[in-house]
Amino acid sequence: MLRPPSPALLDSLASLLGPRGFSREAEAMEPWLGDWRGRYRGRAAALLSPATAAEVQAIVGRCAEAMVALVPQGGNTSMVGGATPDVEGGALLVSLRRMNSVRSVSAEDNVAVAEAGAILSDLHEAAAAAGRRFPLSLGAKGSATVGGLVSTNAGGTQVLRFGPMRSLVLGLEAVLPDGSLFEGLSALRKDNRGYDLKQLLIGAEGTLGIVTAASLKLVAAPGSHSVAWVGLGSPAAALALLRRLEARLGEAVESFELVPEDALALVLAGIPGTRPPLAASHRWHVLVESVAPESGRDAVDALQEALAEALGEGLAQDAVVAASEAQAAALWRLRESIAEAERVQGPSVKHDVSVPVSAMPAFIEQARAAVETRFDGARVVAFGHLGDGNVHFNVQPPAGATAEAWLAEQAGAVTRLVHDLVGEAGGSISAEHGIGQSKLAELARTADPTRLAALRAIKSALDPAGIMNPGKLLPSV
Amino acid sequence: MLRPPSPALLDSLASLLGPRGFSREAEAMEPWLGDWRGRYRGRAAALLSPATAAEVQAIVGRCAEAMVALVPQGGNTSMVGGATPDVEGGALLVSLRRMNSVRSVSAEDNVAVAEAGAILSDLHEAAAAAGRRFPLSLGAKGSATVGGLVSTNAGGTQVLRFGPMRSLVLGLEAVLPDGSLFEGLSALRKDNRGYDLKQLLIGAEGTLGIVTAASLKLVAAPGSHSVAWVGLGSPAAALALLRRLEARLGEAVESFELVPEDALALVLAGIPGTRPPLAASHRWHVLVESVAPESGRDAVDALQEALAEALGEGLAQDAVVAASEAQAAALWRLRESIAEAERVQGPSVKHDVSVPVSAMPAFIEQARAAVETRFDGARVVAFGHLGDGNVHFNVQPPAGATAEAWLAEQAGAVTRLVHDLVGEAGGSISAEHGIGQSKLAELARTADPTRLAALRAIKSALDPAGIMNPGKLLPSV
Repeated sequence: MLRPPSPALLDSLASLLGPRGFSREAEAMEPWLGDWRGRYRGRAAALLSPATAAEVQAIVGRCAEAMVALVPQGGNTSMVGGATPDVEGGALLVSLRRMNSVRSVSAEDNVAVAEAGAILSDLHEAAAAAGRRFPLSLGAKGSATVGGLVSTNAGGTQVLRFGPMRSLVLGLEAVLPDGSLFEGLSALRKDNRGYDLKQLLIGAEGTLGIVTAASLKLVAAPGSHSVAWVGLGSPAAALALLRRLEARLGEAVESFELVPEDALALVLAGIPGTRPPLAASHRWHVLVESVAPESGRDAVDALQEALAEALGEGLAQDAVVAASEAQAAALWRLRESIAEAERVQGPSVKHDVSVPVSAMPAFIEQARAAVETRFDGARVVAFGHLGDGNVHFNVQPPAGATAEAWLAEQAGAVTRLVHDLVGEAGGSISAEHGIGQSKLAELARTADPTRLAALRAIKSALDPAGIMNPGKLLPSV
Repeated sequence: MLRPPSPALLDSLASLLGPRGFSREAEAMEPWLGDWRGRYRGRAAALLSPATAAEVQAIVGRCAEAMVALVPQGGNTSMVGGATPDVEGGALLVSLRRMNSVRSVSAEDNVAVAEAGAILSDLHEAAAAAGRRFPLSLGAKGSATVGGLVSTNAGGTQVLRFGPMRSLVLGLEAVLPDGSLFEGLSALRKDNRGYDLKQLLIGAEGTLGIVTAASLKLVAAPGSHSVAWVGLGSPAAALALLRRLEARLGEAVESFELVPEDALALVLAGIPGTRPPLAASHRWHVLVESVAPESGRDAVDALQEALAEALGEGLAQDAVVAASEAQAAALWRLRESIAEAERVQGPSVKHDVSVPVSAMPAFIEQARAAVETRFDGARVVAFGHLGDGNVHFNVQPPAGATAEAWLAEQAGAVTRLVHDLVGEAGGSISAEHGIGQSKLAELARTADPTRLAALRAIKSALDPAGIMNPGKLLPSV
């Protein structure tokens, strides 16, 4: 059983970490006790902010002995309450934010080594300064940290070409639940010395240890890039267009984001300074980004030509290719503002699901129909990363209803219906956001018992006392 | 403690599997009791050849109960004795070779589902028939199986662009050590439902379960490809050339294989029908393969131009680009025949090591000097995948020595020296071949105790009786 920290343990941690690294003040802790979406609020006995891996080791070692729970935290941008402690108040928050340096960037090795608290946009800049690129980006890049991105196996808008965080982690340094240090930063492209321990830590949401640093894969900065907005008739047409562009342009297609007419309408109505990208209206839209290497044809020319061909073949109804960086940014803003535009509309039931890519067009249309039929007046906004089979499937309360009351009554049933449809399509109830605390019940309801048993066996083997981020990722038995 | 199978267990397995799936005949078992390199020979109580995952489940379930060891086997092409049973004779060989179908190929999803016993070259053909490509290849492609490739996280000649097997496995079906079936074939591009169990099975060498099928990533077939042979002065020059080509051609560079002058000489002397690729002699050589998408510039033109530029800048001394498929194949044959040419020379001490890519040029030169200085007359042949930091570092006995006697006396010391140098460079003693039985002692000697403890905890958690491929991958305590 976990225990609250004793005064003696707190004293020893305070003297270990010093005043910058230890706080019990309500004001200092307050911003970190709630989640980004405002759905959870917990308590903690103290906020620990170690400055080195050795300090993290000492924290974990002492807490393992004392059976005290630890909740690791990076930028605190979890969509699923993954970094929020419970309300008991016996846990210690471990913020990695002080460990925020990008230790090295090697253009020759195409590797950056960054501490867990390094912020994604700082990593982008450090890579760019060396003529390289870290090819993962997402809306929260200004606050999301490397440790959090690793621990949640973050996705984002370039997964189509470069894969999620898992594809970009070449090495990890982490403190295991007994306080020992796993020193796996050496960035080897090939290493077959037994089970790949770092793969377990990636996406473990801090339940198997605390990531303190990562070696990350960089790629060449592209010679040119191009962003286009396309209007078309259906998700199936969008997928056909993607395959056509891939055949023409190879792996140059980096992003392929699907946006329905009503999501675009929400953005245009709710976000100041946005303008319709195309002259006419279309039921579905796609944002495409492609790149070209230094010696290749210019990316704008190549994408323009490929889209012209697709229009000629009837694969799309209309398209515009950005003629400037400002236009490209404006197109991206339409896509990236959807979540904000939805928030303006009020709360909704959100789902972050994936299905096999070829199943996604039918899934979107059928699940939308099923939800809108069963929940009268509810409105589905489904958008996302078509090339990854990942759709953010959000359900808004009926226009006339009191949102909170409707959600309190219906959200659970809506989610079960959506997830059941996902299961029938062979999909996942968490494509990129993880389980955290908000999806525990649905994971317990839908997961293969064999898999769940194996995950529990791994958790018990590595964290027998259960001190690492309890109440997250694994449903209790 | 493991036990030999009882007559009752053998009877029950015989009746489960029928005559095609069960044999105790010496002649049937004989080819599968020794390893490909001829270094190990074991014994087995029976050869089991299940035809379905359900049969594998029944085998594993019964053997878990009876504490009987199982040794899974695919094409039996392990370089490290990973699929050879011990000499006690109490283990059962489980051949997956009857489960050899490519169940499906989806060009739309870019996914193939193949059973564990499917042979790599058959998978290549099935993908090609659908206009796609499975981008992993290696010398043993005519016998290596999907299950073995997964279980060893195989590498090969296209890792530079596409990564090892781990990067290409989208889903797995496997029988866990308690006989339960992990059904993870759904090929999702994104799935964050807790620890990624398939990552543990990849590279586990059959010690955590038996892979029965895999969903594998396919890519677009290239529009054109090009193969070149380059002569240059040093490994450092080769790495500079690689970075130059990557900057010019983007990710189009798929293979970048480093060959020293003496390895090429061995091939030209020992392999019939081979011819020198360049007019003059050079200390080092590189084989480059690059591709281009359908709409890109032809790969031959692009590579020719990039190499001409590199020659002009003094990055290389000479280069030839294959003008036909036959010439391309002849160039590849020079690279792929090195192992065979070495075998003709007699036995050697082989190492399959990796270091960070930028450290590889210095490592090759320094390790070669260190070995040839300390072991008088020994000759180093170091070749391999420069772009991956992976070198096959082989040491031949002195010309005058009796090879067997010299090896018996010196091989251990040679290996310890090479691996110590690898360790100093932050490298791995097994880049792509795995641990099997041949690298157990060196893994025990060189591994980080924290990591080893974690691996043992995982093994005990998932296979408490230790029935899965005992004596492989994990050094005994």
